[in-house]
Amino acid sequence: MTKIEMTEAIIAAKITKGTSWAAIAEAGGLSEIFVTSACLGQNSLELDVAVKVTDFLGLDEKVAYALTICPMKAVDVETVSKDPLIYRFFEIAYVYGGSMKEIIHEKFGDGIMSAIDFKLDIDKEEDPKGDRVVVTMNGKFLPYKKW
Amino acid sequence: MTKIEMTEAIIAAKITKGTSWAAIAEAGGLSEIFVTSACLGQNSLELDVAVKVTDFLGLDEKVAYALTICPMKAVDVETVSKDPLIYRFFEIAYVYGGSMKEIIHEKFGDGIMSAIDFKLDIDKEEDPKGDRVVVTMNGKFLPYKKW
Amino acid sequence: MTKIEMTEAIIAAKITKGTSWAAIAEAGGLSEIFVTSACLGQNSLELDVAVKVTDFLGLDEKVAYALTICPMKAVDVETVSKDPLIYRFFEIAYVYGGSMKEIIHEKFGDGIMSAIDFKLDIDKEEDPKGDRVVVTMNGKFLPYKKW
Amino acid sequence: MTKIEMTEAIIAAKITKGTSWAAIAEAGGLSEIFVTSACLGQNSLELDVAVKVTDFLGLDEKVAYALTICPMKAVDVETVSKDPLIYRFFEIAYVYGGSMKEIIHEKFGDGIMSAIDFKLDIDKEEDPKGDRVVVTMNGKFLPYKKW
Amino acid sequence: MTKIEMTEAIIAAKITKGTSWAAIAEAGGLSEIFVTSACLGQNSLELDVAVKVTDFLGLDEKVAYALTICPMKAVDVETVSKDPLIYRFFEIAYVYGGSMKEIIHEKFGDGIMSAIDFKLDIDKEEDPKGDRVVVTMNGKFLPYKKW
Amino acid sequence: MTKIEMTEAIIAAKITKGTSWAAIAEAGGLSEIFVTSACLGQNSLELDVAVKVTDFLGLDEKVAYALTICPMKAVDVETVSKDPLIYRFFEIAYVYGGSMKEIIHEKFGDGIMSAIDFKLDIDKEEDPKGDRVVVTMNGKFLPYKKW
Amino acid sequence: MTKIEMTEAIIAAKITKGTSWAAIAEAGGLSEIFVTSACLGQNSLELDVAVKVTDFLGLDEKVAYALTICPMKAVDVETVSKDPLIYRFFEIAYVYGGSMKEIIHEKFGDGIMSAIDFKLDIDKEEDPKGDRVVVTMNGKFLPYKKW
Amino acid sequence: MTKIEMTEAIIAAKITKGTSWAAIAEAGGLSEIFVTSACLGQNSLELDVAVKVTDFLGLDEKVAYALTICPMKAVDVETVSKDPLIYRFFEIAYVYGGSMKEIIHEKFGDGIMSAIDFKLDIDKEEDPKGDRVVVTMNGKFLPYKKW
Amino acid sequence: MTKIEMTEAIIAAKITKGTSWAAIAEAGGLSEIFVTSACLGQNSLELDVAVKVTDFLGLDEKVAYALTICPMKAVDVETVSKDPLIYRFFEIAYVYGGSMKEIIHEKFGDGIMSAIDFKLDIDKEEDPKGDRVVVTMNGKFLPYKKW
Amino acid sequence: MTKIEMTEAIIAAKITKGTSWAAIAEAGGLSEIFVTSACLGQNSLELDVAVKVTDFLGLDEKVAYALTICPMKAVDVETVSKDPLIYRFFEIAYVYGGSMKEIIHEKFGDGIMSAIDFKLDIDKEEDPKGDRVVVTMNGKFLPYKKW
Repeated sequence: MTKIEMTEAIIAAKITKGTSWAAIAEAGGLSEIFVTSACLGQNSLELDVAVKVTDFLGLDEKVAYALTICPMKAVDVETVSKDPLIYRFFEIAYVYGGSMKEIIHEKFGDGIMSAIDFKLDIDKEEDPKGDRVVVTMNGKFLPYKKW
Repeated sequence: MTKIEMTEAIIAAKITKGTSWAAIAEAGGLSEIFVTSACLGQNSLELDVAVKVTDFLGLDEKVAYALTICPMKAVDVETVSKDPLIYRFFEIAYVYGGSMKEIIHEKFGDGIMSAIDFKLDIDKEEDPKGDRVVVTMNGKFLPYKKW
Repeated sequence: MTKIEMTEAIIAAKITKGTSWAAIAEAGGLSEIFVTSACLGQNSLELDVAVKVTDFLGLDEKVAYALTICPMKAVDVETVSKDPLIYRFFEIAYVYGGSMKEIIHEKFGDGIMSAIDFKLDIDKEEDPKGDRVVVTMNGKFLPYKKW
Repeated sequence: MTKIEMTEAIIAAKITKGTSWAAIAEAGGLSEIFVTSACLGQNSLELDVAVKVTDFLGLDEKVAYALTICPMKAVDVETVSKDPLIYRFFEIAYVYGGSMKEIIHEKFGDGIMSAIDFKLDIDKEEDPKGDRVVVTMNGKFLPYKKW
Repeated sequence: MTKIEMTEAIIAAKITKGTSWAAIAEAGGLSEIFVTSACLGQNSLELDVAVKVTDFLGLDEKVAYALTICPMKAVDVETVSKDPLIYRFFEIAYVYGGSMKEIIHEKFGDGIMSAIDFKLDIDKEEDPKGDRVVVTMNGKFLPYKKW
Repeated sequence: MTKIEMTEAIIAAKITKGTSWAAIAEAGGLSEIFVTSACLGQNSLELDVAVKVTDFLGLDEKVAYALTICPMKAVDVETVSKDPLIYRFFEIAYVYGGSMKEIIHEKFGDGIMSAIDFKLDIDKEEDPKGDRVVVTMNGKFLPYKKW
Repeated sequence: MTKIEMTEAIIAAKITKGTSWAAIAEAGGLSEIFVTSACLGQNSLELDVAVKVTDFLGLDEKVAYALTICPMKAVDVETVSKDPLIYRFFEIAYVYGGSMKEIIHEKFGDGIMSAIDFKLDIDKEEDPKGDRVVVTMNGKFLPYKKW
Repeated sequence: MTKIEMTEAIIAAKITKGTSWAAIAEAGGLSEIFVTSACLGQNSLELDVAVKVTDFLGLDEKVAYALTICPMKAVDVETVSKDPLIYRFFEIAYVYGGSMKEIIHEKFGDGIMSAIDFKLDIDKEEDPKGDRVVVTMNGKFLPYKKW
Repeated sequence: MTKIEMTEAIIAAKITKGTSWAAIAEAGGLSEIFVTSACLGQNSLELDVAVKVTDFLGLDEKVAYALTICPMKAVDVETVSKDPLIYRFFEIAYVYGGSMKEIIHEKFGDGIMSAIDFKLDIDKEEDPKGDRVVVTMNGKFLPYKKW
Repeated sequence: MTKIEMTEAIIAAKITKGTSWAAIAEAGGLSEIFVTSACLGQNSLELDVAVKVTDFLGLDEKVAYALTICPMKAVDVETVSKDPLIYRFFEIAYVYGGSMKEIIHEKFGDGIMSAIDFKLDIDKEEDPKGDRVVVTMNGKFLPYKKW
């Protein structure tokens, strides 16, 4: 079972069951974004978490096994996405990338924010002028090793 | 005075004065990221804010005027940055873009997070295993108009 | 049912029934461009509108359901289309993009025209020297937030 | 005098004089977008119009002459602009390009909207929920010749 | 029936019947290049012409109908073809594009040669030193509208 | 003197003298397109022809010498031009490239039209419905050698 | 039978028969490189040669016929190959392209080496320090026509 | 002195002296292509050879020293050259790359032709039907190491 | 059997058998990286090694034969991988490529490290602050031939 | 002083002084590759190390200061280098990237080798059949955080 077949099985089960990513994530005991990313074939799960997810969805062990494989990440993803929602993250990198670099160096010194020792959450901030999406990225600062 | 000359003047004054983006932003009365982005030529300032920034840095009114011009954004920026710090934001879009899309649609319906009615802050989370960079993006949810 | 299968089913039914996008849009109670874009997998419909469209076309509820899914937009679209009709819109962006930027900033200040809180209509202007295509785009002005 | 030097001279004079594209266009007797596009080096003006523009701005005849030259269009423009305002026109082509093609063929038959025998205007529609940008494109329909 | 299936059916029938594009075009009553371009899915035919073509080739009405659909042009074509015969037309645009621009502007003023109100023929010029290919392009001059 | 400096000198002299490419070509005794292409740095001239051109323009022998150098062709040219006039030749290659290939093979066998043993002329065909641009390309047929 | 199916049939027969490109080429009476290029779908053969090749391989006339069709060349080939053996030819063009241009112009005047009236052979030069690959390209010099 | 300044000095001296690459190479005691490639900044020379070249051209020791530096190769070269002479080598790689791979593997086993332990010569083969360019590449066969 | 089918068969057998690349490599008697690269279709094995691998995995001789074929390398690989693990090797080339070039030239003279007469090993260095990946590349230095 | 001016000053001083990267690195007290990368503008040095380097080279404090600035990395570097020495590292990523991914996951689990908490050394392994370049990369394994 390829990662693509795995994702198709999960999405079909999600629709049939009429459930949500929030519920699937809760079944797995991890965050919404991480569990969704694993279901979309962009991260791997430990076997026990994978089984919780597939049990919740009524899927068999082949799907659970597929969820534990380390994926070839982002291989089918556009270099610059044309989907408006996803493109906005590229636009943020274009417009604010240089500023984020300046401020991170000023606050932390020379280094980067890890995208591996990293977590990301999405929250809804209610606002009478229109609700707001709050994306919180939290990554370990990695100083450049000088050897 | 072009935006590039403006940025060069500001960075030279920042070095000479031995100050920081945090102090410049405080002088302008706005956030670190926004003021830095204006100084790097990616956003415009209102004239009164611009003057506070240039007065603080000991720069003349031509620089203040240049800060008020609406910039052609991101024109000199790489389509995919090769700088490791900035690239990580592209990597996040590659690995988590699809998951963010699923979760935003689940929480908000069909639409996007605005990158215009938008703010972005960077904080330092101290951690004995290594400090962490916290990037908070906050953008208005814009539902797709159906007409 | 994928969005591609959905579009194939709709186009096949449109041909069999010998109907038009105008009639399909009228059945759905929304504009020609918006309904067509949903049928082509570039926008989503509310369920009641989707059912009106599929009832009109004699299609079953799977197609209606597929019409309600938030699509991954523009994923199969060329970065720069080589179709002459579509390319002209790229050419307009190349030749007039800078001028539109100047005039929008002059009339509205710093910000953009939303492509999400947005509508687009196409009309025919009869002219003895050759009929003319009139494309009207109407998007909310979004001022850049300064925070 | 190159087109780039011409544009720099015009923008400098526009700032010095404290005038607007609207006023420059009115001096020239043509529309805002067309005159601006000529000043930005993307279109040519007849000599009499060019002289009205340069007289209004207090510029010499070399600038007027430069305005009459047929430009190499769009040569310094990005293939896909990263400026948010301009990018939205690419996004519209990505999301609505296929729908515009269907509707234009349905209304006019096989052919295209000319981007040469073409005019484009930008208006402001006041709206208590936020003003709206209205872009009207009007191009001659060109049927494909069958020979 | 997609345009690709249509082209496959036509080419199979052309081989079986042992006929030529010249003969197919003559059956249709239009030029070699135009009829061939329609058969290759790059142009549409009127129904009566399409029927003449499919009757000549012994194909059914589904193929004739497919020939009348407005195609999404050039979507499967390389941005720069690597086939030597087709590449030479790119090379001509590279080497002579600037010169053609100068001469067309000198002879006609500011504007372009239409590629829509356009015809193209290919002839053989016999020559004892080696026969020559003569490509004649004939397109309406479209002056840039100044509005 | 580089090819770029040579072209700048020629264009400056052409403007000062108030002459045309047609007159420059006539002075050189060759066709409009070929002489223009040499002046734009895309072809080389024999010394005697180069001298006729520079004498006519009142330019010195350095320019004549520069005209005789074999140029690095098309090095500053866009891979796909965004100028509307030049782009149409790319569009013709996209839409008609496959058809031209079929017809040339049908008329001549396996091989190509040379773009080196090649000439190209541009004529004006007067037409009450709008004058037409006629581009005639004439290149030697080169059969693929089978060895 | 497409060119791809033709190549698959030939390679399968070559393996089954346990023969070599050298033997296939000898059967066809032409050179190794040319016959191989035809079998890989990059060149066409005359019918009598094609039949010799397919008879030798025990393949039927459909394959022979497919070998005679003029191919769309290089359409499935990477713009810059990442295979190390093939990439080296790109590297040679990168490193020595400018030098080959200078020397060919010095020896022959302005013009090019044809890649159509062209042959290419590969030989093995035995050498105790390691055998050497000798690639000999032989193409007609084509002087640029001056018209 | 950069490599670019070095090349400009050499070409200026070559023109002033009225000499050829053949004579410069003979002065250096190495082949035409190699010496030319060093003069164009694509290879380095030993100091004694460099001095012979610069003495012959009447250039000073800074140029000789620059010729000994290991260059950053091909950095200013197009990914796919649009110059017709150089492009033909890309076309040869497109059309014959796969065939060369098959034949080299058949004659030598798994491995590549080195482009480093490599030499390249260009000769003129006189022919009454048109002289021919003969390019001979000679590179060491490098078998893939299996470890 | 294509290389892709071969790899699928090997991975399926590896999962079924519950074995590792290390064990497969040991069965074949070669290193982990080399045997894995052959199994992934990026290198070829001698027949006796291939049979050891397929015997170990319980696969038939078709797979062994497929392992001996010289592969078209890297043809399905992204030009710049977006997988974070693989991308880091591109990042190393971006950040340290120039420095490696300087140091290799300083230590060895003008030439390169072969990627063909080359071996690569990956080891685990245990470290209480976090284990470390050690990648050792060992390639023959190839001096540029001066001819 | 920009990073580019800094690098030019260092290279000029290195030539004048007749020293090596090895000696400069020894002066700074860090490894060859790291110090070279800082001098080439790809890493930053602590002030005390920077001063040791500039004192050794006889350069002033502006250069030392420039060495301490966090650089925008790899911004002027090609996406895929065409220099043969540097390209080989891209080739290694193409041919062995997938295998390295498999083996790192097998030895360490799901995660990556850091290119930030990372060191790289280049050694010379003497060998009678030709010296060998040994590149040792040593990066911390970063396991993917599951949150």
